[in-house]
Amino acid sequence: MDGKWVRNAWYVAGWSHDLVAGRIEARVIIDQPLALYRKQDGQVVALEDRCCHRFAPLSMGRLEQDDLRCMYHGLKFASDGRCIEIPGQKLIPQSACVRRYPAAERGGWIWIWMGEESAADLRSIPDPVRLDDPAYCMRSGQMDYAAHYLLIDDNLLDLSHLSYAHEKTLGLDMPQWADERPRISALERGLRVQRWLCDQPSRGFMKRWGETLDLWNSYDFLFPGIFLLRTAFYPVGTARRLDRGEPQEPPLFLRYDDQAVTPMTDRTTRYFYAAGARSADIDPERVGRLFGIVEAAFAEDKAIIEAQQKVIDREPGRRMLPTSLDAGPTQFRKLVQALLEQDGRPGPAATAQVG
Amino acid sequence: MDGKWVRNAWYVAGWSHDLVAGRIEARVIIDQPLALYRKQDGQVVALEDRCCHRFAPLSMGRLEQDDLRCMYHGLKFASDGRCIEIPGQKLIPQSACVRRYPAAERGGWIWIWMGEESAADLRSIPDPVRLDDPAYCMRSGQMDYAAHYLLIDDNLLDLSHLSYAHEKTLGLDMPQWADERPRISALERGLRVQRWLCDQPSRGFMKRWGETLDLWNSYDFLFPGIFLLRTAFYPVGTARRLDRGEPQEPPLFLRYDDQAVTPMTDRTTRYFYAAGARSADIDPERVGRLFGIVEAAFAEDKAIIEAQQKVIDREPGRRMLPTSLDAGPTQFRKLVQALLEQDGRPGPAATAQVG
Amino acid sequence: MDGKWVRNAWYVAGWSHDLVAGRIEARVIIDQPLALYRKQDGQVVALEDRCCHRFAPLSMGRLEQDDLRCMYHGLKFASDGRCIEIPGQKLIPQSACVRRYPAAERGGWIWIWMGEESAADLRSIPDPVRLDDPAYCMRSGQMDYAAHYLLIDDNLLDLSHLSYAHEKTLGLDMPQWADERPRISALERGLRVQRWLCDQPSRGFMKRWGETLDLWNSYDFLFPGIFLLRTAFYPVGTARRLDRGEPQEPPLFLRYDDQAVTPMTDRTTRYFYAAGARSADIDPERVGRLFGIVEAAFAEDKAIIEAQQKVIDREPGRRMLPTSLDAGPTQFRKLVQALLEQDGRPGPAATAQVG
Repeated sequence: MDGKWVRNAWYVAGWSHDLVAGRIEARVIIDQPLALYRKQDGQVVALEDRCCHRFAPLSMGRLEQDDLRCMYHGLKFASDGRCIEIPGQKLIPQSACVRRYPAAERGGWIWIWMGEESAADLRSIPDPVRLDDPAYCMRSGQMDYAAHYLLIDDNLLDLSHLSYAHEKTLGLDMPQWADERPRISALERGLRVQRWLCDQPSRGFMKRWGETLDLWNSYDFLFPGIFLLRTAFYPVGTARRLDRGEPQEPPLFLRYDDQAVTPMTDRTTRYFYAAGARSADIDPERVGRLFGIVEAAFAEDKAIIEAQQKVIDREPGRRMLPTSLDAGPTQFRKLVQALLEQDGRPGPAATAQVG
Repeated sequence: MDGKWVRNAWYVAGWSHDLVAGRIEARVIIDQPLALYRKQDGQVVALEDRCCHRFAPLSMGRLEQDDLRCMYHGLKFASDGRCIEIPGQKLIPQSACVRRYPAAERGGWIWIWMGEESAADLRSIPDPVRLDDPAYCMRSGQMDYAAHYLLIDDNLLDLSHLSYAHEKTLGLDMPQWADERPRISALERGLRVQRWLCDQPSRGFMKRWGETLDLWNSYDFLFPGIFLLRTAFYPVGTARRLDRGEPQEPPLFLRYDDQAVTPMTDRTTRYFYAAGARSADIDPERVGRLFGIVEAAFAEDKAIIEAQQKVIDREPGRRMLPTSLDAGPTQFRKLVQALLEQDGRPGPAATAQVG
Repeated sequence: MDGKWVRNAWYVAGWSHDLVAGRIEARVIIDQPLALYRKQDGQVVALEDRCCHRFAPLSMGRLEQDDLRCMYHGLKFASDGRCIEIPGQKLIPQSACVRRYPAAERGGWIWIWMGEESAADLRSIPDPVRLDDPAYCMRSGQMDYAAHYLLIDDNLLDLSHLSYAHEKTLGLDMPQWADERPRISALERGLRVQRWLCDQPSRGFMKRWGETLDLWNSYDFLFPGIFLLRTAFYPVGTARRLDRGEPQEPPLFLRYDDQAVTPMTDRTTRYFYAAGARSADIDPERVGRLFGIVEAAFAEDKAIIEAQQKVIDREPGRRMLPTSLDAGPTQFRKLVQALLEQDGRPGPAATAQVG
């Protein structure tokens, strides 16, 4: 799906702390260059990073209160994208403007709507744990991939790779993640993936609850690659007692992993991640240890996925062999296809449904 | 205009001091590889840098008196490009030759004619200040751009950017360069651009003539990007007294800025520049200071233009928004178009006229 | 001949010491990615380096006895390429396999057959000096080129370049290599090139046999670039006495140079080489000195050939000027063309004959 982008979607552009007052940040999302900055009231602005005059990047420009001046020939733009000054020229044509993208900030995550402004619905922004909520203790980070974003989505949609790709970091050298088929259900713009993993060895502070535990592993995966994982730990036997149904009772411990995959270009993708638990359940030092393991595992994913991308690009037309592991990736790619088709059509864009 | 080159033109290949006796220099101009060297009498030779036999570069060869031997299989070429020896073969076919390009050296500048030899006219070589003339005190330098040469030409043809792109180096943070529309007139292969800038703050040694001065800023801009700027400083009020006409009286101070833009490939360009004044008017140390500021400003141009090139290449088909600032760039691009068309036609090639 | 590969041929993949027990090596030959390893009995295995499932490279996998497990999602392959385990799935479809390439190891050289398995004939493997044979004292090395393999083949097929390209290392600054036309005869998949070089200055320990010597220089050159050179040194006058015929009598000294050119991609090639003599004729220290000169000369070849490739790529359509030096390269390229055509056809593939 090279060069084809779903525009009508919220994409993560970065963390709140990336945007410092008075500075302009250059970002690229689905091949579109963006200049991001804060207005004086703190509100995030996302403009096309390309002056309409001679295409100099506005991110090399200068903030003047809430406006942005291109520092090549001095055209000045309001935060809605309208050109409000052309040096040496009184009349400003209507076509003098750059595109403005709807932007939103939610608990430390910055979201940009890359599609038609009229279709942007703030209520459809996904809902990861707020990083600024004192009830949670989370750590966050990011890394850049030299790979198409769907390869990273595939990885997150098929956790069977945990048994193999992460044997050195997560120590999950056992085939259970692959053998235990998850239940997959459709969401409006994504999939829900759930499974029990029984009798898993305890680690660290969780040993107080027994040598092994049952894990309820459940995540929503939303376009373009928003991964909201909740891992609930229960006493051994819980899964069998509940006949492997979804647990309603409170777990011994609940872990949060929120991630976002943001395509930059066909072969570059930014990967954002946060991990932690409720502040009442964990202390910052333990979150730091856990986060170190997470980052080591992500480096393993990055190595194998970038290598996979190179193999694919060596002979692009080649067909992959589908296996029963691929239910998640396959369903999600159908959803992406549907969103792509919908993007081209007029009318409300936020109602994709994949069965 | 990617991949389209005007051949019938003089291009600057470098400085006289680049060409040391006994050494061969590789250069690229409009995508043509050149091997440059001096004959024993000092005359500059420019041959195609591609042996006709197996395409090894002649610049890796060996000078033998005035001839050049390819050091792959030993073919030897005279300075007019004719092959005069093929090892192991008595007969030398007529087709055994490399192209020879007319070359000229003028006061430290080396010029190469990239078109038909018959059309080369030494009298059409532009006339910058001779660097070896003791009546002048000039310094020279060069830098390479990762950008198409016309983007650099655009920059030189619209000095309104001085108010914005160079606020940190030239300190011209005022809109006068943009507001003061220059008068533009056609030359045979270029444009003349002239304007008064009134009541400009004096700097350094010029303060002896008053807090502010009037500047007469006049340059010829010739294909492919020869920029011959003369900046004449006058007492405040001169512009008004002359009704903003061209001054005939001698200025307080006259500054020379000579520059040349040489396209190497579609995305690489070499930029040559010299700056200074008459030796009677300035001392070398002051020229050094002035030159430091010039180079800092050029680094700013390079940053914004290379960024502009990247933005353009991200979405090549896109249309720019013309403004009234673009008169110079627009007229010059028409001239380039005319030269391109003329290049293809038979007959005398050095008579382009753009109205 | 970019992007066109003769598949039915033995290619050198590396040296025996490259393949360490328990490790997997990634290689690329004619654009095909290979994962090489040794079975527990030491036998070399060459599998396609691309898991059939999601195209992760198997070279990032794990050896399990003689099998190879992909460490992305855990598919396991036997050394014949069959998939023998898919985690989470009982049934393994027949199409689940990666390509296995015939491999052979001969005296330190590892050979891979890149074509149809049925056409692989171990008897057609070329026969360089065995590096592990104590009767010989050889040293070996390799270097990578940024060039098409045929440019390196051209170089080896026209030793007239020795007079020019290696004046600084081999000190052969004389036109005899170019003037002395070799006799060239056809082999089944290559050419035999032979010549006398008379009255050549002796060097080092060979001075004991006179100030100058006659050299019988004879090599077989086989597809894709197997160069088996024997240089026999005789007393001055031998060539004339034999009327420049092939000598049958034992030489004063016999030198061996075995080399292999292995195309990786259109613009990357690996060059393997070994040099030495019979152990009775030379000691290791002298082989070391000789090898140092060889490697310096190869660095000169690499510099000129990579530069040649760049010149070619600057204007790909251009025609070279054939000279009488090119008999070897020209005949060999015809052979390559014949092999390419043969590759497409059904039937026995190992019988190319070029007249």
